[in-house]
Amino acid sequence: MREAMDSGRGDGVKGEWSNLIQVFTCPEDEATRAVLVHHMRQILFELHDFLIQNVGITEAVSLKKISDRCTDTVLNREPEKRLADVITDVFQEIAPHAVNVASPYFVGHMTAAIPYFMVHLKAIVAALNQNVVKLETSKLLSVLEKQVMAKVHRLIYGNDEAFYREHVQNTHTSLGSFTEGGTTANLTALWVARNKALGPCGTFKGVESEGLAAAYAAHGIDRCVVLVSRRCHYSLRKCGGILGIGNANIISVPVDGTNHMRVDCLAEMIDGFKKEGRVKVMAVVAVVGTTETGNVDRLDEIGAICRQEGIFLHADAAWGGPTLMSETYAPLLDGIDGADSVAMDGHKQFYMPMSCGMIFFKDPTSLDAVAYNANYIIRKGSVDLGSKTLAGSREANCLILDSAFKIMGSRGYGMLIDHGIELARDFAEEIQGRDLFQLVTAPELNILTYRICPRAMREELATASPERILALNDHLNEVNRTLQQEQREAGNSFVSRTVLELETVFPGSPTGKVVVLRSVLMNPLTTLDILRDILDEQEALYADWCEGAIPKKGRCRVGKG
Amino acid sequence: MREAMDSGRGDGVKGEWSNLIQVFTCPEDEATRAVLVHHMRQILFELHDFLIQNVGITEAVSLKKISDRCTDTVLNREPEKRLADVITDVFQEIAPHAVNVASPYFVGHMTAAIPYFMVHLKAIVAALNQNVVKLETSKLLSVLEKQVMAKVHRLIYGNDEAFYREHVQNTHTSLGSFTEGGTTANLTALWVARNKALGPCGTFKGVESEGLAAAYAAHGIDRCVVLVSRRCHYSLRKCGGILGIGNANIISVPVDGTNHMRVDCLAEMIDGFKKEGRVKVMAVVAVVGTTETGNVDRLDEIGAICRQEGIFLHADAAWGGPTLMSETYAPLLDGIDGADSVAMDGHKQFYMPMSCGMIFFKDPTSLDAVAYNANYIIRKGSVDLGSKTLAGSREANCLILDSAFKIMGSRGYGMLIDHGIELARDFAEEIQGRDLFQLVTAPELNILTYRICPRAMREELATASPERILALNDHLNEVNRTLQQEQREAGNSFVSRTVLELETVFPGSPTGKVVVLRSVLMNPLTTLDILRDILDEQEALYADWCEGAIPKKGRCRVGKG
Repeated sequence: MREAMDSGRGDGVKGEWSNLIQVFTCPEDEATRAVLVHHMRQILFELHDFLIQNVGITEAVSLKKISDRCTDTVLNREPEKRLADVITDVFQEIAPHAVNVASPYFVGHMTAAIPYFMVHLKAIVAALNQNVVKLETSKLLSVLEKQVMAKVHRLIYGNDEAFYREHVQNTHTSLGSFTEGGTTANLTALWVARNKALGPCGTFKGVESEGLAAAYAAHGIDRCVVLVSRRCHYSLRKCGGILGIGNANIISVPVDGTNHMRVDCLAEMIDGFKKEGRVKVMAVVAVVGTTETGNVDRLDEIGAICRQEGIFLHADAAWGGPTLMSETYAPLLDGIDGADSVAMDGHKQFYMPMSCGMIFFKDPTSLDAVAYNANYIIRKGSVDLGSKTLAGSREANCLILDSAFKIMGSRGYGMLIDHGIELARDFAEEIQGRDLFQLVTAPELNILTYRICPRAMREELATASPERILALNDHLNEVNRTLQQEQREAGNSFVSRTVLELETVFPGSPTGKVVVLRSVLMNPLTTLDILRDILDEQEALYADWCEGAIPKKGRCRVGKG
Repeated sequence: MREAMDSGRGDGVKGEWSNLIQVFTCPEDEATRAVLVHHMRQILFELHDFLIQNVGITEAVSLKKISDRCTDTVLNREPEKRLADVITDVFQEIAPHAVNVASPYFVGHMTAAIPYFMVHLKAIVAALNQNVVKLETSKLLSVLEKQVMAKVHRLIYGNDEAFYREHVQNTHTSLGSFTEGGTTANLTALWVARNKALGPCGTFKGVESEGLAAAYAAHGIDRCVVLVSRRCHYSLRKCGGILGIGNANIISVPVDGTNHMRVDCLAEMIDGFKKEGRVKVMAVVAVVGTTETGNVDRLDEIGAICRQEGIFLHADAAWGGPTLMSETYAPLLDGIDGADSVAMDGHKQFYMPMSCGMIFFKDPTSLDAVAYNANYIIRKGSVDLGSKTLAGSREANCLILDSAFKIMGSRGYGMLIDHGIELARDFAEEIQGRDLFQLVTAPELNILTYRICPRAMREELATASPERILALNDHLNEVNRTLQQEQREAGNSFVSRTVLELETVFPGSPTGKVVVLRSVLMNPLTTLDILRDILDEQEALYADWCEGAIPKKGRCRVGKG
């Protein structure tokens, strides 16, 4: 089975034991080493070159066709391929039908190019294969995780040196931990908030031990609610479901015309629940970079209310957190140090490979609320990180982030953030300068939404009756939905689409849904010229649509604009 | 900042934009490519050679010393290192103080050597950086995940070809999904079980929507319980806490002298809860490879009870699942196809890099109980995998497992499993043949526990009074605890330790705790000779201890044995 790693055409891979265990040993001979290094060269460069030359963003092939190739479900008994074949397959069968998220024309989602060195760092993590659930399978890497968490905690909270000296390597406290991603980070935060809100009292041992029904009885309440921005990530509803408070109790606070949580409404809703009685506001969640529109809630004002009311404040900074490294735009996040917990994603604007999230707590004892121990590992008082994480076994993502900090510096990261924000502003101007497009949500960070909406129709919309506005809007929704799909399927560029509330983004409009195109500008290789190309393509698609070259699928109520 | 990737000694990394974005582009010049390839060579081979020559399993350096080096918490503003420096650091500062889990002398935990090609596969996943939360950032990789899940589902459940044809690429059903690890897999299973047990009824919209307190009221119960083996993984208690049923309601069923859940007790407990009334047995969890002792619960008998009672049965096969690929030992798992859900870990006996788990469901509509959707992604009826997973963004681990299947075949995996089980049996015989050691739990799969317990003391224990047994046992616990630590710190080899119940593992003994040494034999490079070396080292350590060369830390109540 060593042949599995060769590129030579050895006869038959038989799977005998001596061959099998060779796969687990470091090859000594230079020939085999050269082959393995050659494969890495293919992965690093040839894959990239191939994608650029042959694929664009994604091949124009239907999901049906791709699915039809992946229907064999019998696990092969004998080895079928060598590593060389597998890599050939990646070029021929996998990559062409994947999505080239690294393309600067891919500006639709929060996944983009990552620095080249990230592939090396991920390879190091795999080669060391440490498991940071416990010291006995990670040692230094557990210690390094605590250090890296402290560095980001300091970026967020900026406590003094004495605080960090006390906690950075304290085995009894925790400033935060890596998680699988933003969802698990949010879940960890709300898990802590729930357990703090419904802790032991009298003979009641706490919600973690006795469950929610007993907790409500002991605390004299009928339900718990979490107040979130209407623009919050869908994972928060999911967290409410998982944690047993019910996703219907994750309650949206309205946003204003610029997609910020309305602080007046928040205050009113908290008051309302107090008056209602037997309801506990378990937490408030502010968003730092809304997924759909990239806006940052007013952390200072929200924090003041939460402190006054004694409510746990979680900041979901999965997207916007790294803005703290921008010397120009960090002030947008003023007040984040008032949050009891902060979620961030490594695989978003820290430009780490999938998947990596982080959760931080202002109070280094917060994670005690969710601590677990076992006999064979994570014994009490040990440095075993697994005692205070949702996950058990985990890879050592700290090595990747620590190295990236060393290579890029916070200033390097800050420059990436600045580029995205400034490019988004330029793009907004470009959109506003073209007849066919309407800017729907202006960028605060590096995300904006717009739609195809010809000037004539914009003018009509400005004075139309509510009925006419809804009819025109339906038509525009159909156009934008169709053309976004057409552009995606053409495979040269990609913007995403989402749905916002008509009455919110265009105050004064009747209640309705508006389909918008969404650009996320995180790839440093994306330029204004590239964005102009994307708009040009949309203009061409619209022209085709008007001429009937693109079939109208839906239930349009008005003709072309 | 391109210099960040060079190994040349360029002056100062300035972080200018043009340099910065070069880090994101594929280098065109052969010189830079050669440097990047050289770094991969270092990661693949030199790291390994260095560890073998210099480190053993881990350096004999205290946690305190390591921690003291990792206390700087100020994030550097300017770039400090190039990739070349970072890799040098990995050799000099990281790897020596990490744990060489790939060593065949590391037989204490469920983390070990992985095939060499895994580093390549992980690098491919990082280079493609797909996000399988949604089709728009993964395309083929989402389809491939469904196929790989179906292959393992078929290995577990063995349904007919028509079933798999119907479901393998069905966008409305799901046979399972990858998860972060075993904990998240177990959590997903119990999340589904909870939602099925407490679904909509009357005007009640279901526990996911309205929460547990409302669910208990609607279903007329006061609490939910989950019945688990006393040997189950600690993550199940954690899942009970997270899901809001309370970890005190994760109730242990006693095990027999061979660490199998007592099916008679299970039946009695279910009966008891039925008689008690207002208690719902939400699920039963059987273990397929207990973490501490590697035993497999009697799935057939447990399944029969669960079917009869209409209780959801989850099989935690995080460790033992891949035994299904062994042509000799697969029958140990007979009845696993009766489980409603099955958890497995990729990073355990599928020999994948950290972190990767999997969850499978017998009923392809089970995951509907936990489905979520959002406007901008994972729209209803789409193939977006994120609609039915706890996690949001996820890396494409399917590519690793699919490739590994192709390279190794199920027979290759089966040979690895066979090796571990047979080596464990040989090791048990070796232990029983030595005067100093006592086998505590015999291996069923590839895990066993034993302890230092000199023959003379074993003979005394056989006839001693309960008080004397406890005194001797205390002494032995101290010896085993101390010598396990000594051996770990010496850094040549590693067995773990855990605590079992005296009265269970030695029937007839008084109630007490017994400290045992635990061997997990998954590394195919581990041989009986290596295990003999480990026992020899323990014998030598014991001799040192008897001579007073190792300080006695604890509260020993009897002298040396």
